[in-house]
Amino acid sequence: MGNDHPDAKLYPHATGAAAKMVKAHQKEESLKLYSGWFCPFVQRVLLVLLEKKIPFQYIEVNPYDKPASLLALNPRGLVPTLSYANKPLYESTVICEFLEDAYPSSTPHLLPSDPYLKAKSRIWIDFVTSRIIPSFHRFLQFQGGESSGLSKLREEFLGKVKEFTLEMDKNGPYFLGEEVSLVDLVLAPWAVRFWVFDHYKGGLKLPVGEEWVGRWKKWVSAVEKRESVVSTTSEREYYLPIYQRYADDVAQSELAKATREGKGVP
Amino acid sequence: MGNDHPDAKLYPHATGAAAKMVKAHQKEESLKLYSGWFCPFVQRVLLVLLEKKIPFQYIEVNPYDKPASLLALNPRGLVPTLSYANKPLYESTVICEFLEDAYPSSTPHLLPSDPYLKAKSRIWIDFVTSRIIPSFHRFLQFQGGESSGLSKLREEFLGKVKEFTLEMDKNGPYFLGEEVSLVDLVLAPWAVRFWVFDHYKGGLKLPVGEEWVGRWKKWVSAVEKRESVVSTTSEREYYLPIYQRYADDVAQSELAKATREGKGVP
Ligand SMILES: N[C@@H](CCC(=O)N[C@@H](CS)C(=O)NCC(=O)O)C(=O)O
Ligand SMILES: N[C@@H](CCC(=O)N[C@@H](CS)C(=O)NCC(=O)O)C(=O)O
Repeated sequence: MGNDHPDAKLYPHATGAAAKMVKAHQKEESLKLYSGWFCPFVQRVLLVLLEKKIPFQYIEVNPYDKPASLLALNPRGLVPTLSYANKPLYESTVICEFLEDAYPSSTPHLLPSDPYLKAKSRIWIDFVTSRIIPSFHRFLQFQGGESSGLSKLREEFLGKVKEFTLEMDKNGPYFLGEEVSLVDLVLAPWAVRFWVFDHYKGGLKLPVGEEWVGRWKKWVSAVEKRESVVSTTSEREYYLPIYQRYADDVAQSELAKATREGKGVP
Repeated sequence: MGNDHPDAKLYPHATGAAAKMVKAHQKEESLKLYSGWFCPFVQRVLLVLLEKKIPFQYIEVNPYDKPASLLALNPRGLVPTLSYANKPLYESTVICEFLEDAYPSSTPHLLPSDPYLKAKSRIWIDFVTSRIIPSFHRFLQFQGGESSGLSKLREEFLGKVKEFTLEMDKNGPYFLGEEVSLVDLVLAPWAVRFWVFDHYKGGLKLPVGEEWVGRWKKWVSAVEKRESVVSTTSEREYYLPIYQRYADDVAQSELAKATREGKGVP
C-alpha cells in the first residue's frame, strides 16, 4: 500500500460523462459516497443512487493510497463506503439494498415486493458476485495463450454469462422483464467493461448462432444505454492503464490478489 | 457423485434430539425443506423455521447421491433447497431472508426493522459466509503439523472469529443484544461444530486472557443452549466419519473441493 502500490498514482478523477455527474454531486449532503471513479463496485451504488434520484455527495478517494478519512469509516479500506448521517456502511450489495430500504418512497423500486420474486432476484445478484466476477477476473488475469488455458477460462466465463442469461425473462429487455432491477444494476458495471477482453485477451468470442446470445445482447444494449450507466462511465483511455495491470497480472488490488490465490471477491 | 462418492453412503438420517425434530415435521406441508441431517447450511434454515414456528415438512435427501427430486428443484443439487407452493428456492442466506419476508407475522423478527441496523447485520451475515466459513475449512482440511502451517491457519481462523466478536453488542448475549437475530443463527451451526478442531487439529486454542474471548464464550453458551439449536443437532458420533474425511482432506463435497482450490463457499 502507500506510495509504491502500482495504483497509488492512478488517474485522480472521473472524465467524460462521469466527470459531469461528479460535478453535479459536490454539494454537502448527509449521505456521502466515498468512491473511486474507476471502480465497478462503486458504480453499482451510483447506479442505484441515480436511478432512484437520491441526493448524495460524491467524494473521490484512492483506495490504493487509503486516506485516513476512508479507514476511519471502513477498516477494510475499500470503496464504495457510505456515510449515512455520520454512520458508515460498506459492501456494495449491502449498500444497494440499504438504499432500497432507507428511501422507500424513492422510485423505481429495484427489487420485487413479492417475497418469492425478491428471493429469486437475490439468488442471481449473489450469482453475479460469487460466480461471474471471479470468473471475469480469472479470465482477465490469466497469463498464457489460447491453447495453454486461455480458451478454457473464456469458456468457463461465457458459461457463467450463459447460465445468468438463461434465467432472464424471455422478453425483457431486463432480467426481470420490462423494468430495470437490482439484478441488472449489479452486473452492469462489468458488462460495460467486457471490451477489456477484446483489448487484451483475444476477444470475448460470444458463440455465433446460439439462442441465448441474442437474449444477452438485447440485455446489454438496454443496460448500456441507460442514463445512469452512461453518466457513470469515464473515457475509456483512462481505464486502460488500470486494466493493463490486471491483464498483465501485476495489479495489487485485494481483488487481483484474491484472484491469484483462486479466491472470490474480497 | 453417484455411488463412488465417499459420502454417498453416509449415515442416512438424523439421530438424537434432531431425530425427534424430524419426526415432528413429517406431515405434508406446502413448505418443504430438502435437507441433509449433517449439513450446517440446512441447519441455518431449520433454526429460522423453528425460531419463527413456521410449519414445514422435512425431507431427507443425500446431496452426495443426488435424487432426481432434488435436481428438479435445484440444478446446483445442494441442500438446503426449499419448495414453496411448488416453487424452488436455494442458498441458505437467501432462504433465511425469504422466510423473514414471506411470514411477516411470525415472530421473533430476525432482522432489525431499522434500515441501517439491518444493513449492518447483513455485513456480518456476509462476513460469516465469505470469511469465517472458508477459514474454518482451510484450518480443518489442512494436512501438516503445527510448524508447517497449521498454527498459521488456526491463527487466521481465530482472527476472523475475533473480528466478528469485536462487533458484538457489549452486553449481549447475542450479536445484536438481548434478542437472537439472523447474525447469530447463520454462524451457530459452525459454532456448535468447533469441537472438530479438538478432535482432529490439536485444539482450537482460544487465547487465554484476551478480553474478546470472554465475550465470545458468552455468545457461544447462549447460542448452544437455544432450543432450536439443541433440537437440530444429531449425536456427535454420526458426524465423525463425515468430518474425518474433511480432516483428512479427502472429502469430495463442493465445499471441500472449493477449499482445496483456495475458493470460498460454493
Ligand atoms: N466486496 C466489496 C469490494 C469492493 C472493492 O474491491 N473495491 C476496490 C476498488 S474497485 C477497492 O477498494 N480496492 C482497494 C484495495 O484492493 O485495497 C464491495 O462489494 O463493495
Ligand atoms: N451456498 C450454499 C451451500 C450449501 C452446501 O454446500 N450444502 C452441502 C451440504 S452441507 C451440499 O449440498 N453439498 C453437495 C455437494 O457438495 O455436492 C448454501 O448456503 O445453501
